[in-house]
Amino acid sequence: MSTHLTVHVGLAHTQYDITIFSSAESSENSHDTQLSQTSRILDGLQPVTHLVVITDEIVATAHAEPFVDKCRQHVGRVDLMTVPAGEASKCIEQASRLWQQMLDAGADRKTVVAAVGGGVVGDLAGFVAATYGRGVRFLQVPTTLLAQVDSSVGGKVGINLPHAKNIIGAFWQPAAVLIDTSALSTLPDREYRSGLAEVVKYGVIMDEPFFEYLSRNVTEIMDRDPQSLRHVVSRCCQLKSDVVVADETEVTGRRAILNYGHTFAHAFEAVGGYGAILHGEAVAIGMVCASRLAESQGMVPGGFTDRQINVLNAFDLPTTTPDYDRQQLLAAMQLDKKVAHGKLNFILPKQEMGSMVLVGEITDDQILAALGG
Amino acid sequence: MSTHLTVHVGLAHTQYDITIFSSAESSENSHDTQLSQTSRILDGLQPVTHLVVITDEIVATAHAEPFVDKCRQHVGRVDLMTVPAGEASKCIEQASRLWQQMLDAGADRKTVVAAVGGGVVGDLAGFVAATYGRGVRFLQVPTTLLAQVDSSVGGKVGINLPHAKNIIGAFWQPAAVLIDTSALSTLPDREYRSGLAEVVKYGVIMDEPFFEYLSRNVTEIMDRDPQSLRHVVSRCCQLKSDVVVADETEVTGRRAILNYGHTFAHAFEAVGGYGAILHGEAVAIGMVCASRLAESQGMVPGGFTDRQINVLNAFDLPTTTPDYDRQQLLAAMQLDKKVAHGKLNFILPKQEMGSMVLVGEITDDQILAALGG
Repeated sequence: MSTHLTVHVGLAHTQYDITIFSSAESSENSHDTQLSQTSRILDGLQPVTHLVVITDEIVATAHAEPFVDKCRQHVGRVDLMTVPAGEASKCIEQASRLWQQMLDAGADRKTVVAAVGGGVVGDLAGFVAATYGRGVRFLQVPTTLLAQVDSSVGGKVGINLPHAKNIIGAFWQPAAVLIDTSALSTLPDREYRSGLAEVVKYGVIMDEPFFEYLSRNVTEIMDRDPQSLRHVVSRCCQLKSDVVVADETEVTGRRAILNYGHTFAHAFEAVGGYGAILHGEAVAIGMVCASRLAESQGMVPGGFTDRQINVLNAFDLPTTTPDYDRQQLLAAMQLDKKVAHGKLNFILPKQEMGSMVLVGEITDDQILAALGG
Repeated sequence: MSTHLTVHVGLAHTQYDITIFSSAESSENSHDTQLSQTSRILDGLQPVTHLVVITDEIVATAHAEPFVDKCRQHVGRVDLMTVPAGEASKCIEQASRLWQQMLDAGADRKTVVAAVGGGVVGDLAGFVAATYGRGVRFLQVPTTLLAQVDSSVGGKVGINLPHAKNIIGAFWQPAAVLIDTSALSTLPDREYRSGLAEVVKYGVIMDEPFFEYLSRNVTEIMDRDPQSLRHVVSRCCQLKSDVVVADETEVTGRRAILNYGHTFAHAFEAVGGYGAILHGEAVAIGMVCASRLAESQGMVPGGFTDRQINVLNAFDLPTTTPDYDRQQLLAAMQLDKKVAHGKLNFILPKQEMGSMVLVGEITDDQILAALGG
């Protein structure tokens, strides 16, 4: 019995499937499940003669090497390329190194690049795939919750310049996304919970019933129950896909709803120093601040923010602004504003979950009140 | 009276115009003509608030600075960025420098990048435009004959790795191409003639009447007569556009006809050392070799090669293989073959001009005979 779920992403000029499965669920044939999904995907990409698997040092042994072994049963040549773990690898130097390694490995326009890892690996490998030989096919194999529900879907790939995240990149859609939720079993607790913040975000911005489902299934989700994980990940992928289909290259503005809580979150990350606070933790607090801001404007009914706080706390996520200097936080938001050419906008809920609006003209005092404390 | 010509390029997902004009033709209002074409193009790109003009040290004074002056009358912020002249600038280091300069200049997704110069500037600036902010709009302002008839049209942009030309890049179509054939007045003779080799190529591969036109108008073309130049450049742009529309991203194979003579040419350039022989000179000789190869196979009637030799010689282009070691030339072609994964194919004429076929299975002896001498 196949228990995989599929989310189909149908874009104007391309389409692809996100396959969500859980190899660990039936222990006696987990290898087969993983193998059969991998081979099904590879078969679907037409004959693949050369595969370049890009990963980082942390997931290489647990995830990338087993993936490579499976691929070798279907593909004549498979090369594994490893970068250091962490955001610093999303840089020109690592992209250059990978380009050169691919050239040395004889990669051509028929080569397929597979990214096995979290968001950093996916963004970097995707950028390399988008630009090598004027673009080669690309397979996302995300192994963190954040990558499975967010960064692996939607085609945004890229690298950083010093002081400017994701400034160099492309919209380059994957040919397929292969998600084994069993990979999450090796994810550290804090990183797993951090991913849950983005999961809660999908509920607030797009799907109140899903938000309610999360509230009712905290234990199963915290226990990483395979069936619950499959539902959570596939629902998030479907919601993200809906947004991407409506606004693939950020033209209509629909994609902006994904930034709920992120204006505050970026300030927490910038002031705390990247790494001090995880992205999902910053998003959790940022959503609370944004919701409080909406509540103070009378945009949502009383208690709207508390509902989010309750779920986020149940997932052991922080919901109060860290003890950072308030003026520094304001300055960080102004810097964001400068980068966006003068517009400091907030994505805020209006009336109910699933209904978001873009609001400008927020004063510093209103922001300070929303930060709380 | 407007004397500009327009070639419309209608692709599946985008479209743009190539405007060909000659600012020097009517001396009293040449400034107006150049200015009016520039402003018409900028107006067509919706309000442009920030323009980044990328050029090289050689054309900066003669072409880029006057272009910047004109743009400043329409665009609030115009930044000029200059790279060293020559193929070596198509590298990661220059792309990185331009990315950082754009960031420092506050470029965002609404910024437009304009490339003023030859093929190197167009390829490099196009790659930077394709990747900055996940892609910004891009304007080609080619100032060499080769760039006007070939590289500025078609959307191929990219940079080199050591030992691999154009291996990193994208298909990124310009939003407009603005061609002032008067810019060719400052082009050194040898470089101008080199561009004519690609012009002759279009006649052979696609348009016998155009080939005949070239034969009959050698004097006017060599004199860079404005009316003749406008016809030559616009006809080449139309022919190139036809190929690109039929095969934008090199999927159907149609785009391969543009490589007529280029397998031999790449070997001449590799063995001679890049720079010893100009690209167009190598193409001129390469076309003669390819044609001779077709003639030896009985694919074209006798005299077919001589017709090309006559026109190329009339344009003062070389038509005999340089005194390079024949085994080295064969080895260079084998290296090309290795890069293309085992297939050494030649684009050869069949029966008549405008009819090309891809031929494999050519022996070393046949190649040596085609090289002649």
